[in-house]
Amino acid sequence: MIKIGIYGYGNLGKGVEKAIKKNSDMELVAVFTRRDPKSLTIETSKAKVVNIKDVLNYKDKIDVMVICGGSATDLPEMTPELAKNFNVIDSFDTHANVPTHYNNVNNSANASKHVAIISVGWDPGMFSLNRCIMESILPDGKDYTFWGKGVSQGHSDAIRRINGVVDARQYTCPVEKALEAVRSGKNPELSVREKHTRLCYVVAKEGADKALIEKEIKEMPNYFADYDTTVNFISLEELKKNHNGIPHGGFVIRTGSTSDNVKHVIEYSLKLDSNPEFTGSILVAYARAAARLYKRADFGCKTVFDIAPKDLAIVDYSELLKHTL
Amino acid sequence: MIKIGIYGYGNLGKGVEKAIKKNSDMELVAVFTRRDPKSLTIETSKAKVVNIKDVLNYKDKIDVMVICGGSATDLPEMTPELAKNFNVIDSFDTHANVPTHYNNVNNSANASKHVAIISVGWDPGMFSLNRCIMESILPDGKDYTFWGKGVSQGHSDAIRRINGVVDARQYTCPVEKALEAVRSGKNPELSVREKHTRLCYVVAKEGADKALIEKEIKEMPNYFADYDTTVNFISLEELKKNHNGIPHGGFVIRTGSTSDNVKHVIEYSLKLDSNPEFTGSILVAYARAAARLYKRADFGCKTVFDIAPKDLAIVDYSELLKHTL
Repeated sequence: MIKIGIYGYGNLGKGVEKAIKKNSDMELVAVFTRRDPKSLTIETSKAKVVNIKDVLNYKDKIDVMVICGGSATDLPEMTPELAKNFNVIDSFDTHANVPTHYNNVNNSANASKHVAIISVGWDPGMFSLNRCIMESILPDGKDYTFWGKGVSQGHSDAIRRINGVVDARQYTCPVEKALEAVRSGKNPELSVREKHTRLCYVVAKEGADKALIEKEIKEMPNYFADYDTTVNFISLEELKKNHNGIPHGGFVIRTGSTSDNVKHVIEYSLKLDSNPEFTGSILVAYARAAARLYKRADFGCKTVFDIAPKDLAIVDYSELLKHTL
Repeated sequence: MIKIGIYGYGNLGKGVEKAIKKNSDMELVAVFTRRDPKSLTIETSKAKVVNIKDVLNYKDKIDVMVICGGSATDLPEMTPELAKNFNVIDSFDTHANVPTHYNNVNNSANASKHVAIISVGWDPGMFSLNRCIMESILPDGKDYTFWGKGVSQGHSDAIRRINGVVDARQYTCPVEKALEAVRSGKNPELSVREKHTRLCYVVAKEGADKALIEKEIKEMPNYFADYDTTVNFISLEELKKNHNGIPHGGFVIRTGSTSDNVKHVIEYSLKLDSNPEFTGSILVAYARAAARLYKRADFGCKTVFDIAPKDLAIVDYSELLKHTL
């Protein structure tokens, strides 16, 4: 059994816990929290809830620590620090800061002789892996990534900060016409506006100026100004009833040619009922790989680019040859 | 530069040659043929055409030999034999015999300290890799593979052997209704007939009994009897004009759940103008991996399950972190 620790128990931590139950070679040992452990109820009766200040007591009791913090401030600190004493996985997703994060984690993991796998999830993660392989097998081509339809937490939060807004949910939607143009192999140049639209469901305070709220949303720089945005005002009941999930998904499409007028289309897509549960499930598969790399003394920082498919698989290699190849 | 040899110059060998031109780190050194080398014209002016009996003269001039033979009789002999003196790649696709082929090649490659990667292509190959990763990241689920729309060489040949048939082309087509049922997450049990149909274009001899030919096709065991088959008689001119290509493609779809009523769909699909050119392009990417594994002294037989994505990439790791992750 691979012994797992979950560091941080928000939506993603809960997703990891659910994923562990679906993998018969995995066991949740403890959930680590900043909160008072007594205040936290988890699904796994055999696992402990522990305050993060006591994490080093678990140094030899955990094979892989799955770090479920935010990319803005948590992970840049947590992952290099925890890699001093544990094998770790995170889902760091601030693309621009990946090289810095990689170096910090790599130094820490190499010094302590541990394995760290960063930026695991679906994007970065599965989408990155697909972009890498697609480009390698079809080098004369171009790839496109589309996201959605799915809830963007950051954009929903941005709407909630507007005066007069009680709650909000923002969906990022890929533009079907753009998807079709890409699939056709035309290699279109697509602006931000042409690739995605933004669909908002907003609950306004009684008596709030809805026209002003809508204007503030649509003109918000970075978040909405560059997109075609639709704003729908709904009741709090309707929001809770119809927009309670955290669905997401997306598409990676590469088109290219192997010779004159010989074209190919490769497409990878996801349609997810729950973004954090699916991301948690990917983290757990890569935790398996981390445990195996550690046994082989293959230390240091890794990403999805370093991991061979067989190291993710619960079944052994001969089964893969027989039934999966 | 990675120096490549092509062993066998049929459709696949020609596809490999075209792919080498698209990869700036690759160089075609020689094409090996059973035929009289003088009778063969190749596209690459700098490369040699050599009879296979002289292959050992190239032992130290080639980094990776891409073996482009058939799975029925060529590859089971060629790959273990050539692995005695070369790093090799093949596209062995007789699923039932993979474990035996793997063992033969592994023994040979380990003894000679070479790298061999077998069963590379899109199925087996990319589809296998996707089945493996999909199952690992979504263990509580089920995957489905559909092929087409594309030309099946074996089925076209079977029709050509019927009395009164001049030429024929057979397309394997996935059933749209079955694809939709799978994507919906219903986990349908699908019979052979429900997954694919077979569409045949047949050129009959002047005066041949077309009704009899159609009956013989539709009732042919293994090839057609279990499928809904459509037979269209056309002229030789029309066959040559409209059915001259070798397109193919397909879908791997996995649906599953991470908790009660929380479902996810993962889909990988290919739409290929030319099956042999695309397969050749994949072989070349894995040839790059074989050359890298050889440098690391990671000898023996491998499959797509053993190869980390970074070893397929022409760009270096820091580029992958910056632009692909």
